[in-house]
Amino acid sequence: MLNRVRSAVAHLVSSGGAPPPRPKSPDLSNAPSAQPAVPPEAPRSPPARAGSGSSAPAKTVEARASFSRPTFLQLSPGGLRRADDHAGRAVQSPPDTGRRLPWSTGYAEVINAGKSRHNEDQACCEVVYVEGRRSVSGVPREPSRGQGLCFYYWGLFDGHAGGGAAEMASRLLHCHIREQLKDLSCWSSQKEVTHESLVVGAIENAFQFMDEQMARERHGHQVEGGCCALVVVYLLGKVYVANAGDSRAIIVRNGEIIPMSREFTPETERQRLQLLGFLKPELLGGEFTHLEFPRRIQPKELGQRMLYRDQNMTGWAYKKIELEDLRFPLVCGEGKKARVMATIGVTRGLGDHNLKVCSSTLPIKPFLSCFPEVRVYDLTQYEHCPDDVLVLGTDGLWDVTSDCEVAATVDRVLSAYEPNDPSRYTALAQALVLGARGTPRDRGWRLPNNKLGSGDDISVFVIPLGGPGSYS
Amino acid sequence: MLNRVRSAVAHLVSSGGAPPPRPKSPDLSNAPSAQPAVPPEAPRSPPARAGSGSSAPAKTVEARASFSRPTFLQLSPGGLRRADDHAGRAVQSPPDTGRRLPWSTGYAEVINAGKSRHNEDQACCEVVYVEGRRSVSGVPREPSRGQGLCFYYWGLFDGHAGGGAAEMASRLLHCHIREQLKDLSCWSSQKEVTHESLVVGAIENAFQFMDEQMARERHGHQVEGGCCALVVVYLLGKVYVANAGDSRAIIVRNGEIIPMSREFTPETERQRLQLLGFLKPELLGGEFTHLEFPRRIQPKELGQRMLYRDQNMTGWAYKKIELEDLRFPLVCGEGKKARVMATIGVTRGLGDHNLKVCSSTLPIKPFLSCFPEVRVYDLTQYEHCPDDVLVLGTDGLWDVTSDCEVAATVDRVLSAYEPNDPSRYTALAQALVLGARGTPRDRGWRLPNNKLGSGDDISVFVIPLGGPGSYS
Repeated sequence: MLNRVRSAVAHLVSSGGAPPPRPKSPDLSNAPSAQPAVPPEAPRSPPARAGSGSSAPAKTVEARASFSRPTFLQLSPGGLRRADDHAGRAVQSPPDTGRRLPWSTGYAEVINAGKSRHNEDQACCEVVYVEGRRSVSGVPREPSRGQGLCFYYWGLFDGHAGGGAAEMASRLLHCHIREQLKDLSCWSSQKEVTHESLVVGAIENAFQFMDEQMARERHGHQVEGGCCALVVVYLLGKVYVANAGDSRAIIVRNGEIIPMSREFTPETERQRLQLLGFLKPELLGGEFTHLEFPRRIQPKELGQRMLYRDQNMTGWAYKKIELEDLRFPLVCGEGKKARVMATIGVTRGLGDHNLKVCSSTLPIKPFLSCFPEVRVYDLTQYEHCPDDVLVLGTDGLWDVTSDCEVAATVDRVLSAYEPNDPSRYTALAQALVLGARGTPRDRGWRLPNNKLGSGDDISVFVIPLGGPGSYS
Repeated sequence: MLNRVRSAVAHLVSSGGAPPPRPKSPDLSNAPSAQPAVPPEAPRSPPARAGSGSSAPAKTVEARASFSRPTFLQLSPGGLRRADDHAGRAVQSPPDTGRRLPWSTGYAEVINAGKSRHNEDQACCEVVYVEGRRSVSGVPREPSRGQGLCFYYWGLFDGHAGGGAAEMASRLLHCHIREQLKDLSCWSSQKEVTHESLVVGAIENAFQFMDEQMARERHGHQVEGGCCALVVVYLLGKVYVANAGDSRAIIVRNGEIIPMSREFTPETERQRLQLLGFLKPELLGGEFTHLEFPRRIQPKELGQRMLYRDQNMTGWAYKKIELEDLRFPLVCGEGKKARVMATIGVTRGLGDHNLKVCSSTLPIKPFLSCFPEVRVYDLTQYEHCPDDVLVLGTDGLWDVTSDCEVAATVDRVLSAYEPNDPSRYTALAQALVLGARGTPRDRGWRLPNNKLGSGDDISVFVIPLGGPGSYS
């Protein structure tokens, strides 16, 4: 793996890649933006959507909000306008002519079909240098500059109720991870504390610090709404996939699918949410019940027997309906319509500090977790071929594409390219985005089978695990 | 499966099996015991072990406590004394000559090597008839007596700090399950509520009601200590395995191992325990910290940086040591030595209502969950052969025997018997218990590889999934 890392770094440096941002302030609030500035002619940010409960005056928000796409797309002002066109929904990828992303990573994105004013997804791909806090002992190091180490970083951020949180996270989360990883240099082997568990802890805490920074700056100009975050860190032979939200990562290896994340929604996190409502009933504000029922209960049903589930149960049982059971359930709805407090459909992510229950002052943030689940994949345990890839996608991809369909597309597209052609991963990312978007017809965007395509923002990274980094 | 159920029921009935107990009282407190009465010469119950915090006078506890072994062992007073002999540790199984357990289930047990006065494991195996609450619509039914249905039931209970809770659970838990399953008759298909999820909910609630009954009767004569509970219910083609504690169930099918439970210990439940301590700090009584550290912190380390994990983290990170961090950690120790509040090594089970932190009045019960995790296995989805078995064991088995070693013993023992010989499953259970106990040598009980055998109580059920029920 050392060779792969070195060649990728060399590639980046030789192609004129700027060093990653290195803010001096510990709270990172002054970190330079990796995004292009708002072009004067760019459309203005939409007001936060219903339920965001932002208390900042609308005018101020609009005046300061930015619309941007990832730097690596190298969009001109005209290109930015085309990327922002809901009617055309042109697929965007980094240009063939520019510098290539690390590891020849493929990327493609498309804006939604009109559900929000701008594309609320954001993405980031960086090589990040970590300066040690002090002298290092016992920790192996890869392409070194001085006493530090480097990690590779990919991030997808799916914003909601505005694009500010996703934009901020795409600009700063890797800086928080870098800050946390400085502690690696203090590490010396201790009972049950492995190097891997320190990297996991660093990523977990970086998510928390990112969220806290958003809380501090939420009255400022950019932190409207919230975002899901799906992040990959490559360090010292291991791939760390951290997910907070409903994006998804899978590895396709020799045709086999290896899930690298799970989604956090009101359905998958029902018991965590119910437990919190049970232990801290004040968070329910007298408006909600922590119990779940198969349907809304009518007042006339008081005293009757009804099926329910509480925080301890995976099955259903009967109880006698009491007055409190008539409140609205904390968790309700199924599938994409499942909601916490009738408001939000994802239960982990960054931001949402101003999110309130509709027509209420009850905050929803206490039920949302900013902590990711981190899965680790050891790249050195398997001899990867150029067709083995890690695919990251926002829910726009996965809403209409199964893991198996993605694996089939991986096979179909990559086999049409030479193994050492670095453009094959971009072609694959584009094929995945196109396959989820579909084509415009009379009644919306349609897939070849005439089912509805995704009307959501769609963003995809394809990271080769044994690709051109080793071959080109 | 209908054939299997009918033939097993017929077998039980023809061999003189008594109908399962059917208490009339809704709270089951008057249910008749399925265990033999204490013989006058039986040794007396030990005082509760350190940390049990029982407030009942010792004399009263001893006078009323019972020592018993499962009814189906059909032990004479002399046999009961031999089963209670720590020096001989004779393996006990139901006699060849008596009635066979349902499904020709195999069972074997052995007492500990002296860690407690009596064998604190208990077991139960029953066919239970459920009378419907009212007329049934839409629910298929198996061997019917009137308007009800039957389920098959196996339970293993591993007691601690006394044998009372395990004894009570082995006598009553299936009655609570029967009571809960009466609601099945009210079921008509509702959105997202399956028949399976109702059985799961019934089992979950039965565990809770069992625990509540122990709480009500804890000042009485028998409910000393607590117990792990591992329970199997077979109903309408499906096997439900419910586990609360550190016992384990695996299916060995065509040589393949299918885990049917997971263990609940301070290590596997660390985050649940820490979350509770964080949200309800009053439960820590100012004596414990919810944070985990790799080692105990010294007062002189105040202000220094130390690795820690909180309720949100799976990895480790650094924090500055504060005064609160000097408290004893809520969760500490590794492996079999892991403890909650320095006291107990299992985090789910029944009872323990009087359990206090050593030399303190701080109750531990709030951190213990009585809810099982229920896994479902559909027996009809696979054509089972007579060598496919479900193995249940208390931790005495699993502490010294891996899943693979159990699978190898399954293969070795069953291949030595004719497929239609119903005694093969008892022979297998005995081989598993013997293999975990070892033989007495100079320095304790030893396995053939000279490692220490298990000094704990060991109890094993072997349930054939395609066995003599279909063949004999």
